[in-house]
Amino acid sequence: MKLFRKFISLDEALKTVLSYANGTEIEEIGFDDALNRVLAEDVHSPIDSPPFDRAAMDGYAIRGEGSFGASPDNPVFLRKKRRGGRGEKENEDVVEIREGEYLPIQTGMQMPEGSNAVVMLEYTKERDTELEIFKPVTPGKNVSFKGEDVKKGEEVLKEGRLLRAHDIGMLASLFKRTVKVYKRAKFGIISTGDELSEPKESFEGEKGIADVNSYVLAALLKKIATPYRIGIVRDDYEEIKNAISCSLEEDCSGLLISGGSSVGKKDFLADAIEDLGKLVFHGVAIRPGEPTGFGLVNNKPVFVLPGYPVATISAFELLVRPFLYAMHGVKEERSKIFAIASKKIPSAVGRTDFARVKRICTEKEYYAEPISVSGSGILSSMTKSDGFVVIDENKEGIEEGEKVEVNVWEYR
Amino acid sequence: MKLFRKFISLDEALKTVLSYANGTEIEEIGFDDALNRVLAEDVHSPIDSPPFDRAAMDGYAIRGEGSFGASPDNPVFLRKKRRGGRGEKENEDVVEIREGEYLPIQTGMQMPEGSNAVVMLEYTKERDTELEIFKPVTPGKNVSFKGEDVKKGEEVLKEGRLLRAHDIGMLASLFKRTVKVYKRAKFGIISTGDELSEPKESFEGEKGIADVNSYVLAALLKKIATPYRIGIVRDDYEEIKNAISCSLEEDCSGLLISGGSSVGKKDFLADAIEDLGKLVFHGVAIRPGEPTGFGLVNNKPVFVLPGYPVATISAFELLVRPFLYAMHGVKEERSKIFAIASKKIPSAVGRTDFARVKRICTEKEYYAEPISVSGSGILSSMTKSDGFVVIDENKEGIEEGEKVEVNVWEYR
Repeated sequence: MKLFRKFISLDEALKTVLSYANGTEIEEIGFDDALNRVLAEDVHSPIDSPPFDRAAMDGYAIRGEGSFGASPDNPVFLRKKRRGGRGEKENEDVVEIREGEYLPIQTGMQMPEGSNAVVMLEYTKERDTELEIFKPVTPGKNVSFKGEDVKKGEEVLKEGRLLRAHDIGMLASLFKRTVKVYKRAKFGIISTGDELSEPKESFEGEKGIADVNSYVLAALLKKIATPYRIGIVRDDYEEIKNAISCSLEEDCSGLLISGGSSVGKKDFLADAIEDLGKLVFHGVAIRPGEPTGFGLVNNKPVFVLPGYPVATISAFELLVRPFLYAMHGVKEERSKIFAIASKKIPSAVGRTDFARVKRICTEKEYYAEPISVSGSGILSSMTKSDGFVVIDENKEGIEEGEKVEVNVWEYR
Repeated sequence: MKLFRKFISLDEALKTVLSYANGTEIEEIGFDDALNRVLAEDVHSPIDSPPFDRAAMDGYAIRGEGSFGASPDNPVFLRKKRRGGRGEKENEDVVEIREGEYLPIQTGMQMPEGSNAVVMLEYTKERDTELEIFKPVTPGKNVSFKGEDVKKGEEVLKEGRLLRAHDIGMLASLFKRTVKVYKRAKFGIISTGDELSEPKESFEGEKGIADVNSYVLAALLKKIATPYRIGIVRDDYEEIKNAISCSLEEDCSGLLISGGSSVGKKDFLADAIEDLGKLVFHGVAIRPGEPTGFGLVNNKPVFVLPGYPVATISAFELLVRPFLYAMHGVKEERSKIFAIASKKIPSAVGRTDFARVKRICTEKEYYAEPISVSGSGILSSMTKSDGFVVIDENKEGIEEGEKVEVNVWEYR
């Protein structure tokens, strides 16, 4: 049996994988299909928004100067503007409000020429074509000015942004029919191990070990890329090599292969990568997740992940996710979520710990409680937790009461 | 022109809409299709997981007691167990380890009968069929015991949970082929307004106002329900009534209709709801979003939302989203994200404010900076913000340095 060549630090592993994160291609899609996609262009507004001055309230469009001095005892009287020459609708462009005139207007409507303020209904009384105003309004009051939201040419969304609902709305408001986004890469997912059974097909009762990894990895991947679940391959060197080659000859941009990545007799994965391409590293000082490796086959990235699901999830969060985000051009930072450690969280110097924590939220404070079981076979430590804390390799655990940054699961 | 009957408080509006949130039906789907769906059953494990004692490390399975006293100067010697009677593979069930015996074992493999510990490779030297051990291991060391992760019959996931990637893995590990989840409701989405243009079809240049709301609402809805975007209906009472009726005769479970919900001349929406069914309330003391209403047509929920996108988003977050989560049976609480207000955030007593904030994250602190523009026409206040703070109607603003809870956009 051979031992890992060496354990490299998480920092080094991360730097290494990121150096291989070549961006995906760019495609142009309808703005309304772009939710959760990564923007591949800076979007500048082709128009002023709003495109004209418009009423921000329901009321009457007037020249504000004409209302000065108005009070309940001493109201100002205005007469209704007669319609312009052409067109039937109220507030047509051709209408021009002069001193002493007004026109009814609704929120969002274009301000008629000459008007510069909207007096609200509650400060007025309208009789036929006469308006009584009880309160002065300054020019500009209750008006949204042309370009107030976005000016023509202004940068509204930056390349690298993960588009959210509001951005879709912004693109709609600018009549930006299509946007350039980074293509979602397709990743093959293989689980290896003679002991594994397919949970969808067979139930082998008390004795079966289900393939968990390919399902977890597919679900984790889905957020940013397209999973292609190949399924279980048994512990046979040629079969494994064949599966790796085949999946990378397909249109997959990369591969996540798990199991058999520790240093037992059947550790074929690292050897297979080396045989087929280049093994860049194997063994990272993270816990759980030490037996994680990375290599290139057909110049495509291959992550060798541990057999235990918890270790695989740890390696995914610490290495694969940052790689995928870099590959897909995400340039956004997440908001940090700080919490107070409710208990000591032990860890060893020299390795980075992936500590699962539960939230305890009070009205004013967020506490992170470590999940005591730490075995990488304990999948319930994931489902019982609300997120994880990364404990730096230079730190000897987290003290009770210490402030920590929590990576909340549902946040992603 | 008529005024809103009265503005009800956000609390009252929320209580009211939630009282109409009838749960959706239950459907049974494959566990691997259940990501982001809401669980409609308590899941109890049908098996012990792991289903047997297994090695948690690569090494040698032994009876731990036999290693007591071992040291580099005084190693313990064990002999390799000869294969059992039937079967070819190593570690077959029939093998039983007795005192003085060992068997090589890999992480995840079933512990052979009689063994109770795994001694790691680095503390041993193997020669042919003899093992030298330099360090004692206590019984139970490096072993995952049967049921250690999940015990047979144990509740692993609760009804009302929004299933995440780890849960899919947990379901796989239990061979739980299908799960019951709440059906995603289909909601119609209508924008009203003569001024609106369809951003996908026409670009009317400097003078057009795009339909933003139906796109934003569809994108917001997608997370939990199925949007059915009907599009723009013009400000015509009969057309609006017709569109509402039609969409609710379809298989829609409810409707979001926006625009024309303030109190101008063309406020047909509230009237139409009253005509067709029942208007429950109209006007909520939230800002932005005052002209929000709620009613029932064909006993299906109809939200009347403001014309301005920012006001519509505010009403969505404060009323529609909680309604949708209740309707879909979500029983999970979110983790709270606290931040420190970097500036005073003004608001008025008597209404609930929906204040957009930007994040400023330092190594140890999260600050929330209010976006100064507050007009509900300013869509860029949404895209420039990272989340929102709800300011209670009894509070007169937030002081600089005050701790606030931030609802981060990308978090949802």
